[in-house]
Amino acid sequence: MAQQVNPPRGMRDFLHAEKAQRERILAVIRAVYRAHGFDEIETPVAEDSERLHAGLGGDNEKLAFGILKRGLTRDDLQAAQEPLDLADLGLRFDLTVPLARFYASHRAELPTVFRSIQIAPVWRAERPQKGRYRQFVQCDIDVLGEPGPRAEAELLVATLAVVDALGLDGGFIRVNDRRLLTGMLATLGFAPDEYDGTLITIDKLDKIGHDGVLAELRERGVTPTAVDALEAFFRRPQTMEFLPFGEAAIRNALPENPDADAIAGLVAIGDAVAAARGADPSAALLQFDPFLVRGMGYYTGPIFELAHPSVPYSLGGGGRYDGMIGRFLGTDVPATGFSLGFERLVDLVELPAGEGAEAIALLHDADVDLAELLTLKAELIATGSRVRLVARPKNVKPTLDALAGEGFTSFAFVDRSTTLASLSLRSLTESASS
Amino acid sequence: MAQQVNPPRGMRDFLHAEKAQRERILAVIRAVYRAHGFDEIETPVAEDSERLHAGLGGDNEKLAFGILKRGLTRDDLQAAQEPLDLADLGLRFDLTVPLARFYASHRAELPTVFRSIQIAPVWRAERPQKGRYRQFVQCDIDVLGEPGPRAEAELLVATLAVVDALGLDGGFIRVNDRRLLTGMLATLGFAPDEYDGTLITIDKLDKIGHDGVLAELRERGVTPTAVDALEAFFRRPQTMEFLPFGEAAIRNALPENPDADAIAGLVAIGDAVAAARGADPSAALLQFDPFLVRGMGYYTGPIFELAHPSVPYSLGGGGRYDGMIGRFLGTDVPATGFSLGFERLVDLVELPAGEGAEAIALLHDADVDLAELLTLKAELIATGSRVRLVARPKNVKPTLDALAGEGFTSFAFVDRSTTLASLSLRSLTESASS
Repeated sequence: MAQQVNPPRGMRDFLHAEKAQRERILAVIRAVYRAHGFDEIETPVAEDSERLHAGLGGDNEKLAFGILKRGLTRDDLQAAQEPLDLADLGLRFDLTVPLARFYASHRAELPTVFRSIQIAPVWRAERPQKGRYRQFVQCDIDVLGEPGPRAEAELLVATLAVVDALGLDGGFIRVNDRRLLTGMLATLGFAPDEYDGTLITIDKLDKIGHDGVLAELRERGVTPTAVDALEAFFRRPQTMEFLPFGEAAIRNALPENPDADAIAGLVAIGDAVAAARGADPSAALLQFDPFLVRGMGYYTGPIFELAHPSVPYSLGGGGRYDGMIGRFLGTDVPATGFSLGFERLVDLVELPAGEGAEAIALLHDADVDLAELLTLKAELIATGSRVRLVARPKNVKPTLDALAGEGFTSFAFVDRSTTLASLSLRSLTESASS
Repeated sequence: MAQQVNPPRGMRDFLHAEKAQRERILAVIRAVYRAHGFDEIETPVAEDSERLHAGLGGDNEKLAFGILKRGLTRDDLQAAQEPLDLADLGLRFDLTVPLARFYASHRAELPTVFRSIQIAPVWRAERPQKGRYRQFVQCDIDVLGEPGPRAEAELLVATLAVVDALGLDGGFIRVNDRRLLTGMLATLGFAPDEYDGTLITIDKLDKIGHDGVLAELRERGVTPTAVDALEAFFRRPQTMEFLPFGEAAIRNALPENPDADAIAGLVAIGDAVAAARGADPSAALLQFDPFLVRGMGYYTGPIFELAHPSVPYSLGGGGRYDGMIGRFLGTDVPATGFSLGFERLVDLVELPAGEGAEAIALLHDADVDLAELLTLKAELIATGSRVRLVARPKNVKPTLDALAGEGFTSFAFVDRSTTLASLSLRSLTESASS
């Protein structure tokens, strides 16, 4: 029986305490992004299969749940060559494909530069494992229609403001540019058709280290002199650490002849973020990381990843992807975005309930008149309190402990003679700690 | 192209103004329900097919979108007898089946009487038409584990508080009890195996009128003397109007020998609601409707429907359904719930944006230094404002009008010399009305 009533594999129920915590965190994220001029939109959970499988989602396209066409006959099933023939819709696997479709559909109704917020679940048919779910929430902001570093500066300032608001002191953002990555590979002697595969390997640097990267590249038969050059570059001591931000530091962390436009863009972003934050430029809110890759192949410019000293994984990331948003529109639209890893943030952040008001449990005798009980409840709600009725149990201690655990702040016993004036509220926090 | 980028058939995108309005209304509903002691939970959008098609969803089960199993081979497609053989999951068509599954899974972690809030989308493969969507939001509250009228009284008081908070003056709730309906049919001479079909016909009363109901029953060959008795009963003038609430009124609106327990329950609910609202009992917040049926066959006791004089359709409804929640648990659990028709409320309710703070657009020249621009933005955000950067267009009027339409309250021009001290904010509301 127990197994039969679990949620579907890899998906989760949220009980009220956890749901409340998630909603509190989402409310903070929403409010900060809104203050920074972003606007929330919503799209359906499903998109037409054709759109989901248009090549914009990379490997995630394979993880899309397909939704069965309606009205299929036995003959349709027989005639199908593959499962996708039977699906006309699919659950979205990210919020970027829907955004591209949304923008193509509504561009005329949107501001020239559109700053979107999307906070919504996505679905991926991944093998369930700890920390990986088949339904999870993404929090994306994107700036569409702005080709310059202003877009990235606004994204990063807003993201750092969320980091502040969630109390994640010490959070910082690793930054790189796709053009610097390919420039580095060119300078080191890799062949252009080796770039993509080499970047996939370099992306594993955090996990397999320098030696692992070099071994994998050699095993795959990548140009040996280029791999040797990369090994020598790895050994330069100043590239072993993420460096503070600034033109000299960036140039110092790269091989010769880096892309000047890319560096100028990063410096402009860094200066604007520091200024907006009123920060000492030496405060390392942004850190240049010459080996930051970000998995998706569609990035075209600056890329970023949110890090925090308390965890070894990233808390979100994003970058410029100028080629994608316009795909359904048939025209180029500059775009850059940042996606917060909401499920990881939830594990890390503790926001106090901070109801701003009392949460009161009324433990009432069985014979209290219903009309009087509800009158009392209504009177307390009118004072701004949250009120739960609880039939008074014989042994109240476990009930009071449970109420305190659920965030209730006070309780009162109610019998037939109790009125608002005679109600004796007692603190639950004291009771729970006793 | 235009058609290709629309959302899937029967599903909708929400642009930022509409999304903000929806979220404002949801925030009001959430806050009121929470104050009244209800707690929000969340379940995945998908449930195992077996559970979705267990008979708890009535006709809606046929409208469930099926989600394709993963890893299907061509042989699997060939071997399938019907589409459902290929689906192991489905999108929920309501929030009650998931609640029953959730309760069975988590009962030990929940309070004895559990008051749940579920605010979430559901999906139905209905033929799309005006006002009917394939993805729409339901707002359900349910009280699980409480067999008596206290549950209904709390539900209805909370619902009426939402009606108040949304500014829907004049909203009221039609009330009946399933036991009074079957008692009425028995007294009028219908055979027990005619009850379900007859109730389905009576449920159309609003649409087809007395004559339509009688004609349909006669056409279907229902016991002629019973239909004659119903006709005579329809003609009793006092049953032609919904009557104010109270034992005498209820008895007066029914044939002889109504179920005394059902009436006592309704009267207790009515007294408690009137007391909690501090209402003059003659204020018709609750109205007894002897012909209120509510479609679903699973109701077992009091049933309700939210009405408003401005619209001919209901804005929500619910009732007691003691047999259902325990189905997956294998034991009986008393339950009653109320579901708000959120999509209909959105059409009816206008909540002002009421940001509580200014929303400012900064129309900046192209040559303003990015770091200075973002500093200015940050300083304004720090004062509690919402801020959007806009590149100053040649002709500002259309831009200002659009900003006002999006809820921005003021704007300022920013050039290279502008600082926070020299910023000249102008009202957008005046500009828009000029």
